[in-house]
Amino acid sequence: MAKPLEYGEDVLLMEVGKDRTFLVRLEQGQALHTHRGTIAHDAVAGQPEGTTILTHTGHRFLAFRPRIGERMFKVRRRTQIVYPKDAGWLILALDVRPGMRVLEMGTGSGAFTILLAQLVGPEGRVYTFDRREEFLENALANIARAGLASRVEAQVLTAGAPFPVSDVDAAFLDLPGPWEAIPATYGALAPGRPLALIVPTAEQLKEAVRVLTETGFAAVEVVELLERRVLVRQREGVRPSERMIGFTGYLVSARKCVSPQGLLSQDAPGVEP
Amino acid sequence: MAKPLEYGEDVLLMEVGKDRTFLVRLEQGQALHTHRGTIAHDAVAGQPEGTTILTHTGHRFLAFRPRIGERMFKVRRRTQIVYPKDAGWLILALDVRPGMRVLEMGTGSGAFTILLAQLVGPEGRVYTFDRREEFLENALANIARAGLASRVEAQVLTAGAPFPVSDVDAAFLDLPGPWEAIPATYGALAPGRPLALIVPTAEQLKEAVRVLTETGFAAVEVVELLERRVLVRQREGVRPSERMIGFTGYLVSARKCVSPQGLLSQDAPGVEP
Amino acid sequence: MAKPLEYGEDVLLMEVGKDRTFLVRLEQGQALHTHRGTIAHDAVAGQPEGTTILTHTGHRFLAFRPRIGERMFKVRRRTQIVYPKDAGWLILALDVRPGMRVLEMGTGSGAFTILLAQLVGPEGRVYTFDRREEFLENALANIARAGLASRVEAQVLTAGAPFPVSDVDAAFLDLPGPWEAIPATYGALAPGRPLALIVPTAEQLKEAVRVLTETGFAAVEVVELLERRVLVRQREGVRPSERMIGFTGYLVSARKCVSPQGLLSQDAPGVEP
Amino acid sequence: MAKPLEYGEDVLLMEVGKDRTFLVRLEQGQALHTHRGTIAHDAVAGQPEGTTILTHTGHRFLAFRPRIGERMFKVRRRTQIVYPKDAGWLILALDVRPGMRVLEMGTGSGAFTILLAQLVGPEGRVYTFDRREEFLENALANIARAGLASRVEAQVLTAGAPFPVSDVDAAFLDLPGPWEAIPATYGALAPGRPLALIVPTAEQLKEAVRVLTETGFAAVEVVELLERRVLVRQREGVRPSERMIGFTGYLVSARKCVSPQGLLSQDAPGVEP
Repeated sequence: MAKPLEYGEDVLLMEVGKDRTFLVRLEQGQALHTHRGTIAHDAVAGQPEGTTILTHTGHRFLAFRPRIGERMFKVRRRTQIVYPKDAGWLILALDVRPGMRVLEMGTGSGAFTILLAQLVGPEGRVYTFDRREEFLENALANIARAGLASRVEAQVLTAGAPFPVSDVDAAFLDLPGPWEAIPATYGALAPGRPLALIVPTAEQLKEAVRVLTETGFAAVEVVELLERRVLVRQREGVRPSERMIGFTGYLVSARKCVSPQGLLSQDAPGVEP
Repeated sequence: MAKPLEYGEDVLLMEVGKDRTFLVRLEQGQALHTHRGTIAHDAVAGQPEGTTILTHTGHRFLAFRPRIGERMFKVRRRTQIVYPKDAGWLILALDVRPGMRVLEMGTGSGAFTILLAQLVGPEGRVYTFDRREEFLENALANIARAGLASRVEAQVLTAGAPFPVSDVDAAFLDLPGPWEAIPATYGALAPGRPLALIVPTAEQLKEAVRVLTETGFAAVEVVELLERRVLVRQREGVRPSERMIGFTGYLVSARKCVSPQGLLSQDAPGVEP
Repeated sequence: MAKPLEYGEDVLLMEVGKDRTFLVRLEQGQALHTHRGTIAHDAVAGQPEGTTILTHTGHRFLAFRPRIGERMFKVRRRTQIVYPKDAGWLILALDVRPGMRVLEMGTGSGAFTILLAQLVGPEGRVYTFDRREEFLENALANIARAGLASRVEAQVLTAGAPFPVSDVDAAFLDLPGPWEAIPATYGALAPGRPLALIVPTAEQLKEAVRVLTETGFAAVEVVELLERRVLVRQREGVRPSERMIGFTGYLVSARKCVSPQGLLSQDAPGVEP
Repeated sequence: MAKPLEYGEDVLLMEVGKDRTFLVRLEQGQALHTHRGTIAHDAVAGQPEGTTILTHTGHRFLAFRPRIGERMFKVRRRTQIVYPKDAGWLILALDVRPGMRVLEMGTGSGAFTILLAQLVGPEGRVYTFDRREEFLENALANIARAGLASRVEAQVLTAGAPFPVSDVDAAFLDLPGPWEAIPATYGALAPGRPLALIVPTAEQLKEAVRVLTETGFAAVEVVELLERRVLVRQREGVRPSERMIGFTGYLVSARKCVSPQGLLSQDAPGVEP
């Protein structure tokens, strides 16, 4: 059976018919003060997910457990975060699955780390690195709030330094100058496994692709994603939103190539020497 | 340690520098015949993932285990499939995670089923339904080839019929006239949990959103995603691709709302009666 | 020889390195007060176009004659205007050229009227109609300011009423419920000539296309245009802008079909009876 | 009164309900042979524009005078052409109007030259240059076919050589390495007047913008346009087209800046020395 919302849990309170949402941890006796009135946490605790709650001024809010993408948006930000539209693409590019061991360089605010940790499951592991301790501290607080701390190992590391892990199943780079981390990432990845990265400019994209190729990555693919909201109003009609995000970054995916393990006859087709 | 590619495994053979790929199951004594020459399976088996293989005419191919998105593209198609760009968004909208129980109506060719099955892990479950037996059979073959059959329960079902499952954590609809399945989906979903669907036209979008709202869903969000490849050539320069997919469908996400479980004082703010 | 900027002329003053612009009519003794300091009109008059002007606080502005697209943006707005990106497409759809007679229903703020008047030249004519007198008055003031009043004839007209012109070379509709004006537009257009219109929703688009087809228009084409700015910074690099306009309207183009003038032998291929 | 289609005229024959069109010059006794049957020119001549014509197998075609955008698409191509979506934007960026004198470097196949010639009218002039004689010859044939030869002066010229014209009202560059032509274009443009150019890659864009700025251009604006067709079917519904052009080039617009003509007091705000 579905569990009711409980004290100690994070709950997303969403004003009905609006985009505005609040992520609150339910605590006895506490209240959320919004521009639309106050909601007592005690009115939320014990209710099933999806319940409509009224503020003291009678405005309606809905109470949901946050989805992982909503958590990503609600992390305390010290840096730019990976957008959900890009995050979904990256999950497929990195072939994330339960039990996997993933490396991340550029923890930032931990938004993507949270998604990775969610998807690798309790048997998986996310090794995340950032050169700035204060970013890592903030990110770890965000990860802990999401209840995913036990799946994440975080460490301060300079871009370019070798990673203290090996044979990881996938690697994601989100840092200024990602090319500096590419050789070390090659070293840490298991043969054939995917790397993905995100860069903001055409120049950085070119440099990243150049270093990928030189380091021994192949199957390089680059895309950008445009997400447009569509407004569906029964009376006024269906139309795309007038405003949209134009660009969040170039997304790159590639796979580690290796030298052949054995030697083959030169006469027959086979592995390139 | 990373395992070499083995007989009985699916391997993606990718021509170096091209988009063309072949998904083959390695079998002793077999060969892949391409327009660029022949590759003996025996030359691939035993090699690590990411190895370069030569055809008998000396053309280079790379051998990788397929990522789940590549499997999705390579399913035997009896229907349109969910595109990877959309699939990533849907994974976040549905908040897919290990151990989850997901309902899917409109199995189609099973491409998205495979992704769901991968991500819910061995503890999770995908309940998938299609009104056409021949689609289900084809989809199950695709799912079995991906090694995910044990996580999937498939059944023929008419759109609109009640689902033989309850309290599922998420639901995805991909069928003509998805609104017919919305009330039954409401019944099968746990309170507050997400539903997502994909529709091809503005009219269907409007009808789906109307029925969602009337049935008791809220937090409705609609987007469309445009994916554009970017070409990165060290000499010629960086530029977006001239060709792109213009549209694959409207993506809708919503959450199940419920009536309050208990009764609250009418005087105080709280759950709406 | 190029004429210097003169008193009585409209001049666009543009802060160097910024997007902010001011459209001012040069008058002796007057001044423009900006957040970056004051510019005396007398410092601008007599200078060639393209001169850098300093404010009294030393900030640099450039002085240009406004291009027609800049005038469109700077009209006094009582309504939504046609965006330049859409305007360019419409000019080609309507096949606008010097000497042409163009009908416009839905003058709005006159932005597109100004563009039409500019392009049909002194020999051409724009017949523009709006159901609201106060819109027409505002639009005519905008048109007069652009120096194009002599090419424009404006009149209040209800949507659906017959137009007091005939055999026009092109027609543009920009009004709520454009389908109401389509039959009258058919009557006013010369045979074979183009009509274009803009609508905001999918439902309106469908209805407009339905009425176009039933009224005797063919070669219907519908597009939407996405314009994204690209930021080019020598140090930071090249990247698309993060913000963009997501949607301004569906653009429709069609051509008037006619019944054949003469009768042809039924045996031979020819004009359809 | 509207003139019927005449011998010696170019007519666009468009299969009803399809995108396929044919541009034919009407000649007595001639016929157009299509995959849908034959159309005798004699069946078209004398008919009003917009008439439906039947092929000898009974298929319906519509007969229209080509719009200028359709002529652009139908030029005999020796090079890539400027796309109509981009052409419309460029017309506004260049502020093209009747009577104008426009410079074009990179005639290519003459598609954009034709549009310019149409819009500057009989009093205007297009000075067009290309480094390759064979391109110019082909372009001039295209321009002549459009009936616009008297408005165009064409000449072979190396990129970078000074232009044999001065004080032109606008300039358009469409050639490999457009930056080579920027200084000479500066020399040929009247003060303050606009230049526009199109480039295919991010690197070329950066270089072009760098040289523009160094040469004395300002108000640099860069955009790219995405055009998506929308399919409107009364029964199946409204939806964007699945296929679209992803990229045709970066569009750049800028304006020529000048040194001040007179000397101003250093104490007062005014023209920068």
